[in-house]
Amino acid sequence: MRLLEERIRRDGKVRPGGVLKVDSFLNHQMDVRLFMELARAWHAVFGSENVTKLLTIEASGIGIACVAGLVFDCPVVFAKKSKTLNIDGSLYRTTVESYTHGNIYDVIVSRDYLLPEDRVLLIDDFLANGAALDGLCDLVRQAGATLIGAGIAVEKCFQPGGERLRARGLRIESLAKIRAMHDDGTLEFC
Amino acid sequence: MRLLEERIRRDGKVRPGGVLKVDSFLNHQMDVRLFMELARAWHAVFGSENVTKLLTIEASGIGIACVAGLVFDCPVVFAKKSKTLNIDGSLYRTTVESYTHGNIYDVIVSRDYLLPEDRVLLIDDFLANGAALDGLCDLVRQAGATLIGAGIAVEKCFQPGGERLRARGLRIESLAKIRAMHDDGTLEFC
Repeated sequence: MRLLEERIRRDGKVRPGGVLKVDSFLNHQMDVRLFMELARAWHAVFGSENVTKLLTIEASGIGIACVAGLVFDCPVVFAKKSKTLNIDGSLYRTTVESYTHGNIYDVIVSRDYLLPEDRVLLIDDFLANGAALDGLCDLVRQAGATLIGAGIAVEKCFQPGGERLRARGLRIESLAKIRAMHDDGTLEFC
Repeated sequence: MRLLEERIRRDGKVRPGGVLKVDSFLNHQMDVRLFMELARAWHAVFGSENVTKLLTIEASGIGIACVAGLVFDCPVVFAKKSKTLNIDGSLYRTTVESYTHGNIYDVIVSRDYLLPEDRVLLIDDFLANGAALDGLCDLVRQAGATLIGAGIAVEKCFQPGGERLRARGLRIESLAKIRAMHDDGTLEFC
């Protein structure tokens, strides 16, 4: 998607170690007009799939997913990072390993908000190693819901998540795909 | 706002100790069509104030604020819960004391995204003791920006935050104001 690629070239900041900072428009300050364009692009791909629910993960996926929810005209659920015990069995729970922050955390979704009859589209801002997306897929599987695919804003194709998840059959629509990032601050799109 | 009050009566759950669970439509599963109506109600109040930025706090404020950002046609910034050190002075930082969870945490905003020329409207899902709103006000003050007011979805008027902040001159537009919650699961609006 040219609009997002141009925005990344203009406002993104490449940092050593494969880090791309997009916090001026995507995940700290948020350009919600841009989010609407992302949402329309995902809807062009998944709009005929009778999606009943969007699922994302806190915190930076929530804004994009809520704007997408307006376009898909369906509720949005976000998986919560949690230390809560599942004492009454009311939750689906999975584990996500963050490569960026070097830690492991639990995420939960209430069983009330992911139902077997749901047709779920995953939404997230980044796909790199795929840990967050793995966790969301696992929550959908636990619920017995139908997994339609994933709408991603920025995919780092030089990290293995996208290839691995596509090989497992997940349909992923990434709107900006980065092939390489260089120490001089430049990047290449696929 | 009748729409929100009716939704709280229908789908909210009153728990002992003044807890109102609205996670079926507000802060876990999110009814983004309802969010659009909340946004329009805030815009009816603050739409003539030339708001340049909406400021909220992660995580549950983000979705509402992003939908409101579409209506106000301006960027949205969310204050992040953080343990990051402010070693390069690039952040505004404040402390929020959560009465609900009984802890104290730091929230930060990059100096790049709150500017002296900004006219800032705060957005959040709940106002009870006002700790989160205190923190957001402090961030706006540190930035030297103009604080226009606060758009709140649900205010618990039996807790002191709203009265205290209004006495300090903050203009607050709460769309559902709860006067009392009872142990039999019922509640009263103002």
